[in-house]
Amino acid sequence: MSFIRPQIEAMAGYVPGEQPQDGAFIKLNTNENPYPPSPAVAEAIREALPRLKKYPDPFAGVFRRKAAELWGVGPEWILCGNGSDDILTIVTRTLVGEGQLLRLLYPSYILYRTLAELQGARFEEVHFNADWSLPPRFGAAEGSPRLAFLANPNSPSGTVVPPEQVLEIAERLTCPLLVDEAYADFAETNCVALIRESEKIMVARSLSKSYALAGLRFGYLIAQPHLIEQFVKVKDSYNCDALSIAAATAALGDQEWHRENRAKILATRRRLLREMQALGFVTVDSQANFTWNTLPGRAVKPLYEELKRRRILVRYMDYSGWGDGLRVSVGTEEEVDVFFEELKRII
Amino acid sequence: MSFIRPQIEAMAGYVPGEQPQDGAFIKLNTNENPYPPSPAVAEAIREALPRLKKYPDPFAGVFRRKAAELWGVGPEWILCGNGSDDILTIVTRTLVGEGQLLRLLYPSYILYRTLAELQGARFEEVHFNADWSLPPRFGAAEGSPRLAFLANPNSPSGTVVPPEQVLEIAERLTCPLLVDEAYADFAETNCVALIRESEKIMVARSLSKSYALAGLRFGYLIAQPHLIEQFVKVKDSYNCDALSIAAATAALGDQEWHRENRAKILATRRRLLREMQALGFVTVDSQANFTWNTLPGRAVKPLYEELKRRRILVRYMDYSGWGDGLRVSVGTEEEVDVFFEELKRII
Repeated sequence: MSFIRPQIEAMAGYVPGEQPQDGAFIKLNTNENPYPPSPAVAEAIREALPRLKKYPDPFAGVFRRKAAELWGVGPEWILCGNGSDDILTIVTRTLVGEGQLLRLLYPSYILYRTLAELQGARFEEVHFNADWSLPPRFGAAEGSPRLAFLANPNSPSGTVVPPEQVLEIAERLTCPLLVDEAYADFAETNCVALIRESEKIMVARSLSKSYALAGLRFGYLIAQPHLIEQFVKVKDSYNCDALSIAAATAALGDQEWHRENRAKILATRRRLLREMQALGFVTVDSQANFTWNTLPGRAVKPLYEELKRRRILVRYMDYSGWGDGLRVSVGTEEEVDVFFEELKRII
Repeated sequence: MSFIRPQIEAMAGYVPGEQPQDGAFIKLNTNENPYPPSPAVAEAIREALPRLKKYPDPFAGVFRRKAAELWGVGPEWILCGNGSDDILTIVTRTLVGEGQLLRLLYPSYILYRTLAELQGARFEEVHFNADWSLPPRFGAAEGSPRLAFLANPNSPSGTVVPPEQVLEIAERLTCPLLVDEAYADFAETNCVALIRESEKIMVARSLSKSYALAGLRFGYLIAQPHLIEQFVKVKDSYNCDALSIAAATAALGDQEWHRENRAKILATRRRLLREMQALGFVTVDSQANFTWNTLPGRAVKPLYEELKRRRILVRYMDYSGWGDGLRVSVGTEEEVDVFFEELKRII
């Protein structure tokens, strides 16, 4: 007899992007920021070192106040997480029971499906329209979903559903809608202002991408306070450590760094799109820090493999029944130089 | 209609010990180590700072190898967690489904019960014998438990169930037994060697107490590899951050610091027990870094409150149907001086 819950034993498990630890690769595969974080981060960490022997603040008060200030809400609207994956896990566990329905989109972030499976929940995958807009089914009451996930900007496309359409969908839904804005700092719009208008809209944010802190694990949720109170019951008591609370607060406090970094990423994104198109790739107009590239009529997996042999990692993604392509993260200008140099040799 | 799962809406939520962030208290309430961690920790963190922009190793390989070396097992026997609370959560989610049974002891760590509630699982609280030994019921097949938790040393008592009794219980149990050894570095025995003998025995370890790293959030599990493989599916992909992986590895690497620190804690524990007894408290022979103190025939809550007014925090615990007392963590000699000075004034 197995001790393991059957739905977990049956799972393959979520496979994160390759993370070689030897530093010998140009990494354009997991949407990290290619530039170092604000210098304020290292300073905050050094200052926090003497506090390591004590438990951290279970509510990460200093960060909540900083994020609240940034978004014009009260601190009670903010929940901190050990990466935004922790936020997604907490929200799923709070809202979705065994056998209940979680609604998600396809193709999108594969983790949402894994979260449903871990709960022993069912999931319904609604396919994006061909132009990456939302089909009406995503907001339908049928099936009584308990939670819906929308990555906005989406991955792998980098496309954005405009806030007015998100609000309209949320109003039709009979359950909360988690808008995963991991990449929204690179976009032209976001849904934070909608949270006051609808208790159904919650926004998850990550410091991994736009604050260059993937290694730190820090994310947060913005939602109405009566929901935050419930999520607090489900999170681990001390889910954020003393160093990451201090570092994340410092990162949010340096908006000048943030603006300059964003401008650099957006400039390189334009270049990436232009040069990929010049090589014959079909691209999508990305509002994230990556681009999605397909090559109709030709296999792209060998390109991924050949680039890897040349110490350049991009993400090869194959969505069953939909198609495959290469997701290429925005690197530094120098990294992108090398990427195109090698790509041109093998294409 | 509420969006929240009913069992979560009904929960009060786990209340962690008070964590004032202003540093103005002598904290003897949450079993932190009163001494700073090994100097190797700060050095490892400074070295890891340049890696913050990249995702960490999802499997925390360097730590797994270090822990494996310490315990004489292979790295595939180790699972790393964002604090041992993360480990307890992962194990519960992997093994216990809605409506299934989790077996625990009373009085013990209150979080175990919370973990069952979060899963929508049932729990059976087996009462310790009066001498803190295990009653036969704890190992019974009745009720078909899916998981059993044993804090060893236990809290609040600080008592230890000898390994041979743990093995005997595990052999009778029809489910895995998680031995929570958060405090075992302060004890004379532990159950790590039993893991090879029984796939049912798993041991959770924390760096919060005996490595003085409560603020870092790092714990790990030692269990047979076929179980670790399942737990990996359930954990967040990047549940441990780059700084904590580096710091925890450095901490485990400094066994000289560990031995010296342990000797100091054990000396102060002996003093705490002796002086509490001299004041009329009934104590238990603790093998942890805290002592459990009752005062038969007299209310101790006012003592907790009066100490708090004097900026000394101890933990007042009231176990319904069993009794109340003060759990006092081992502080520095100077902190314990102040504690007794104030306690003698008010008792």
